[in-house]
Amino acid sequence: MSRADDLAFAHRLADAAGEAIRPWFRARVEVETKGDASPVTVADRAAETAMRALIDAERPAEGIVGEEFGISNPGASRVWVLDPIDGTRSFIAGRPIFGTLIALLEEGRPVLGIIDQPIGRDRWTGAEGEPTTLNGRIVTTRRCPALSMALIASTGPQYFHAPERTRFEALAAAAGQLVYGGDCYNYGLVAAGHIDIVVEANLKLHDFAALAPIVIGAGGSMTDWEGGPLDQNSNGSVIALGDASLLPEVSRRLLV
Amino acid sequence: MSRADDLAFAHRLADAAGEAIRPWFRARVEVETKGDASPVTVADRAAETAMRALIDAERPAEGIVGEEFGISNPGASRVWVLDPIDGTRSFIAGRPIFGTLIALLEEGRPVLGIIDQPIGRDRWTGAEGEPTTLNGRIVTTRRCPALSMALIASTGPQYFHAPERTRFEALAAAAGQLVYGGDCYNYGLVAAGHIDIVVEANLKLHDFAALAPIVIGAGGSMTDWEGGPLDQNSNGSVIALGDASLLPEVSRRLLV
Repeated sequence: MSRADDLAFAHRLADAAGEAIRPWFRARVEVETKGDASPVTVADRAAETAMRALIDAERPAEGIVGEEFGISNPGASRVWVLDPIDGTRSFIAGRPIFGTLIALLEEGRPVLGIIDQPIGRDRWTGAEGEPTTLNGRIVTTRRCPALSMALIASTGPQYFHAPERTRFEALAAAAGQLVYGGDCYNYGLVAAGHIDIVVEANLKLHDFAALAPIVIGAGGSMTDWEGGPLDQNSNGSVIALGDASLLPEVSRRLLV
Repeated sequence: MSRADDLAFAHRLADAAGEAIRPWFRARVEVETKGDASPVTVADRAAETAMRALIDAERPAEGIVGEEFGISNPGASRVWVLDPIDGTRSFIAGRPIFGTLIALLEEGRPVLGIIDQPIGRDRWTGAEGEPTTLNGRIVTTRRCPALSMALIASTGPQYFHAPERTRFEALAAAAGQLVYGGDCYNYGLVAAGHIDIVVEANLKLHDFAALAPIVIGAGGSMTDWEGGPLDQNSNGSVIALGDASLLPEVSRRLLV
């Protein structure tokens, strides 16, 4: 399969997820709570089911790691990593800034990613060696020469453990502006040049795999807190930057 | 003027603000910082200017209190309270969940409100004695019999002073789910039955005046932290509830 074939297929996965999700947006769906206290709805399950059916039918030899339904074809060298609704709390609250995340891993490394927002119909695509696009148009990150000028975002301080949280809040206080909320959408906005820094921790593979090719392909940097590349063995800490020159300072402040 | 005339005029104000804002969304606008460290852009100013021009032309005897350009006709008994972009940080970040807020005060009390989101084109209207609408359809809050089942929202913990913040975070930890970010949009989502509780403090008149008629007209409650009604002399603390039966517990936890 060529990268163009993979990308075309990923678009069809995103289309299928969006069709499954839209009828449930701002419907009064039942919310269940999973073992880790995170919520899940019929929309999460319907969207992942729709994507898995396409992969099973057309890419039967490739693997799947899905947030809701787990692993298929363990050991496959090419693996689709699916988060049907990243930002389920935001979805439940009726905010159009959650997203469907689709990544393709080769030998454990993300080489292609999509963020799809099916209500506002914003779709970011990123692929190794290709420019990142938003709704088909190439987007790029913006320069940000100083932390004091940066707009920093994170979904919420409650997602950090206590020592991480203290360090994050000190970093955010040194930045120019701070916005909370946003989940995957924040990373798309880094790629499009509107947010400078996103910092999170304790993410799972399905939360970050799709994001790295998008941020990197737009000219930014996306690593763990130590500055290392993200792959299936990463520890779930992430720093996304529009301007990679901020990495030493951001990393140092988070690790001190 | 009848209430229907006022509401029709308020819709025209919202239309004018939206036209002024849309060209600047996700454009790379210059951000200035005001005395209180809050950001402002050309879009905030253009939207308020457009609304003020309409009021000056068609309602010359009525007052204006605008976030960016201050007071016109001090002492008028009917006053338009304008926040051209509530959630300027969210606007700058490229998130379609900021809003234009328009309120009409009579003798200092908000009797009509609009929340307009000009990108996703969500518009809430509320008026004393009338049902609240979202895009022309009547919406209602939802019942929530227990704090442990509630979805609570607030723009961010950094907007509380320290003792308030500690009490808010304890309240949020006792709630079922928490989402940060959102500004005025959270209150619209209370009115539409998707969020149960919004708590904030240190708001200004232009931040809350439009919201009260919308939440109350949808069947909810919107008061200060002591449970008192909101008017031009309020202290800027607010509790918005879809289900007013939670007011004693929420208020007690915030004031202890």
